[in-house]
Amino acid sequence: MPKPDPLRFSPDPDSAAPLYQQLGAALRAAIRAGRLRVGDRLPSERDYATRLGVSRTTVTAAYQDLKDQGLLRGYVGRGVIVMASDGDVAGPIAWRQLGAPLTRHAPPPGPRRAPGDIPLADGWLHPELVPRAALAASAARVATRPELLASAAPPQGLAALREALAGRLQERGARVAADEVLVTGGAQQGLNVIARALLGPGAVALVESPCWHGAFRAFRAAGAEVVGVPMDHEGVDPDALEDALVRARPKLIYLIPTLQCPTGRVMGVERRRRVLQLCERFRTPVVESVVYDELLFDIAPPPSLKKLDPAGLVIQQGGASKHISPALRLGWLAAPREAMHLLVAAKASLDLSTAPLSQALLADFLASGAQARHLARLRGELERRRDLLVRALARHCPGLRVTPPVGGPYVWAALPPGLSGAEVEAAAAAEGVSVRGGESFLPEQGASGHIRLCYASPDADQLAEGAERLGRALRKLLAQPAVTGDTDAGLAWA
Amino acid sequence: MPKPDPLRFSPDPDSAAPLYQQLGAALRAAIRAGRLRVGDRLPSERDYATRLGVSRTTVTAAYQDLKDQGLLRGYVGRGVIVMASDGDVAGPIAWRQLGAPLTRHAPPPGPRRAPGDIPLADGWLHPELVPRAALAASAARVATRPELLASAAPPQGLAALREALAGRLQERGARVAADEVLVTGGAQQGLNVIARALLGPGAVALVESPCWHGAFRAFRAAGAEVVGVPMDHEGVDPDALEDALVRARPKLIYLIPTLQCPTGRVMGVERRRRVLQLCERFRTPVVESVVYDELLFDIAPPPSLKKLDPAGLVIQQGGASKHISPALRLGWLAAPREAMHLLVAAKASLDLSTAPLSQALLADFLASGAQARHLARLRGELERRRDLLVRALARHCPGLRVTPPVGGPYVWAALPPGLSGAEVEAAAAAEGVSVRGGESFLPEQGASGHIRLCYASPDADQLAEGAERLGRALRKLLAQPAVTGDTDAGLAWA
Repeated sequence: MPKPDPLRFSPDPDSAAPLYQQLGAALRAAIRAGRLRVGDRLPSERDYATRLGVSRTTVTAAYQDLKDQGLLRGYVGRGVIVMASDGDVAGPIAWRQLGAPLTRHAPPPGPRRAPGDIPLADGWLHPELVPRAALAASAARVATRPELLASAAPPQGLAALREALAGRLQERGARVAADEVLVTGGAQQGLNVIARALLGPGAVALVESPCWHGAFRAFRAAGAEVVGVPMDHEGVDPDALEDALVRARPKLIYLIPTLQCPTGRVMGVERRRRVLQLCERFRTPVVESVVYDELLFDIAPPPSLKKLDPAGLVIQQGGASKHISPALRLGWLAAPREAMHLLVAAKASLDLSTAPLSQALLADFLASGAQARHLARLRGELERRRDLLVRALARHCPGLRVTPPVGGPYVWAALPPGLSGAEVEAAAAAEGVSVRGGESFLPEQGASGHIRLCYASPDADQLAEGAERLGRALRKLLAQPAVTGDTDAGLAWA
Repeated sequence: MPKPDPLRFSPDPDSAAPLYQQLGAALRAAIRAGRLRVGDRLPSERDYATRLGVSRTTVTAAYQDLKDQGLLRGYVGRGVIVMASDGDVAGPIAWRQLGAPLTRHAPPPGPRRAPGDIPLADGWLHPELVPRAALAASAARVATRPELLASAAPPQGLAALREALAGRLQERGARVAADEVLVTGGAQQGLNVIARALLGPGAVALVESPCWHGAFRAFRAAGAEVVGVPMDHEGVDPDALEDALVRARPKLIYLIPTLQCPTGRVMGVERRRRVLQLCERFRTPVVESVVYDELLFDIAPPPSLKKLDPAGLVIQQGGASKHISPALRLGWLAAPREAMHLLVAAKASLDLSTAPLSQALLADFLASGAQARHLARLRGELERRRDLLVRALARHCPGLRVTPPVGGPYVWAALPPGLSGAEVEAAAAAEGVSVRGGESFLPEQGASGHIRLCYASPDADQLAEGAERLGRALRKLLAQPAVTGDTDAGLAWA
């Protein structure tokens, strides 16, 4: 049904009111009903008179009445504009409609949780896995340094922290100097810094599909199109990557080569070399996320892309949340010196700089020697939790297919055929356990046949109960009449 | 001169080499010289043969040679692509060219400073103006709370800080509840949160001209067009605002009604009402920056737009840097409850949340009662410094016209006719004093006849010397042959 023309006017032959008053009343009614809205432009008096078959004087008089009432106003060169005053506009500002499309359509922040729910959805470390005593000792030391409370840090970050971070990256084999490190307000901010520095409207960013959703939100916020590249058991598929490099001419590719989120996969050294060769050939910058690099417990760490990169293509993006503490809200970028001025300009426009107190706290912790002991304990605890959860899933969730991860905080579980991640997420929430449907991690719209479970965030003794609740949710879903539909459409799983 | 066609080929009639080898050599030379670049597509064999007037076999053989050398590769459905291998590509990645236009063209971070320069350019508080003892006491108290080091804060911020901030805003007359406050990583991040929540490609944001450049950088990074509205002595000109609301249909307007940056102007209460009425009529959200609101020392604070806003149009944006400490990197937004979910989604996509330790530190400081004493002292110190600088400018810089500001950290000085802010900034740097040319604050390209001087950042006893050095720079410029040119083009100064 077409919308009624807000400017239509049929005079009432029985009315005693003059024509101009009738026309004015009709326009006022259209404004009150919202058919004419603030800012709309009305036709010129001449045009409207012709259209209605009335005299121009009639339209002029009707407009003048509404102008006197503050409902219309004429602007030179712009015509007559609807200006309805307070009383005529119903209701408060519709903020949701005012939202930018990206934000308005942002996915909800995850499943709603009730007290007593077992939290397997998000990737936060349980407070017991955080080196609280060592951090508290560092906090007590830096709290006595008044300069940290009086002056902002430089946009690139405090030198002491940049040196400590470069030192750790060097220990892991990458050639990174302190002036090639930029401190960020967490790993997620690092993605926004990169996006603002390198992307813009019309740019394309390649990502693994599935991958961390914060990455595609950051890239899209900078105006870029995000294109997912299929993965196999080692991560991004090189042939598909080559095809995407040729076809999409991307401005960057974002990869998590070690313990990919959400799949937990680890790229072997030969695959790393192949991926670098391809990106080098197409001179495409590589964002290598190393946020899970310290969390391998079953295998030795492969060399980072940064270490293998002879061409200076790789920007490493890391954070402290996954292996030290999510409360620090600190991350870093390690980038070729030539890229640093772009990254610093982007960081400055985002928030000028990161708080020096937090930076000094992390620098103190890294220099204190507590990190090595902490990481050994953390890896052991994660391994124990992985085993607990994998065993409990095998026992309580028979249809679920799980490849035990070699490190990190996540199990990526394939659902029984016919179930989608989104419906399992909802059903699990109803049973008192929060999990993440794989849909969250897809750069394109689609269904997923997977869920992500985090064994780092709950109490360890809740893991078995969490699996039991999930099992109940799965059984209930499977007992329902089957719904057909493709899952993981467009994903190539090995 | 048109660029040479990289595919042009003239066979050498004297050469003994077969035609396909000559063609291959010509293409290889074009690749080596950068006339053909990695990713460029070559014409099909048939098309190229027709164009050159050679046989298709010749082109096929030439392409095959280059494929064998790894310089070309055919892709189904995409044609033949230049793939030059490492050895053939000269030099490292040109990161500057890879930068997004906005970042690549970002203005430099301000005048380069040498040791010994007197810093009047930036708006940081001198450490002596920061309540260091009270902040250190707060830091010592919060450093003993291990939960602040173990878990991230919610995206909206710690409840204790939101309550303290809402309390302070209520004291100043605005009706703001704790759940209408969002904590940000500084005022600049607040602008990015708003931009991401409300703006996008095609949107228009209105700003005062001149205004804080971080605002237009944040708005443009979200894809918006920024339109400057002229000001008079009270701030934004209402007639010009109405015109811009009609013509540009903006998604928001950003204003600093109290102690506008860089001009220091204060909007009176009648102007505030008029501006709100206009924005209400056009249902346009107002971003009211209150970062300087606590710094009035000559007059009583006018009511905030938030206080006068009956329609729920105003988002207040504040920060701790200008009146407590720039080291905290904390700010906030106070927004109608209905807008909060958009703002929280934007904040989460920027950096998930702000560090709880800093948030607790500021909450502790605000609850400690130290703020009132600190602000009384700070205002007194700023007044004393304002008087020192204004007197010194009158003495040493006779051509400079200065209206003493009624608060805040800045003097906005009109230059002698014929001088531009940019050239005075450069000449002052050469004399050992850093100032900001007014061009930094113009949303559109153009020259400015003003400079901004900050009397809060240097030592108080450097102010007179700073004015003396500036006077030397001005005298040297004025002694040079006059350069004609409009300054402050497009600005309407009362």
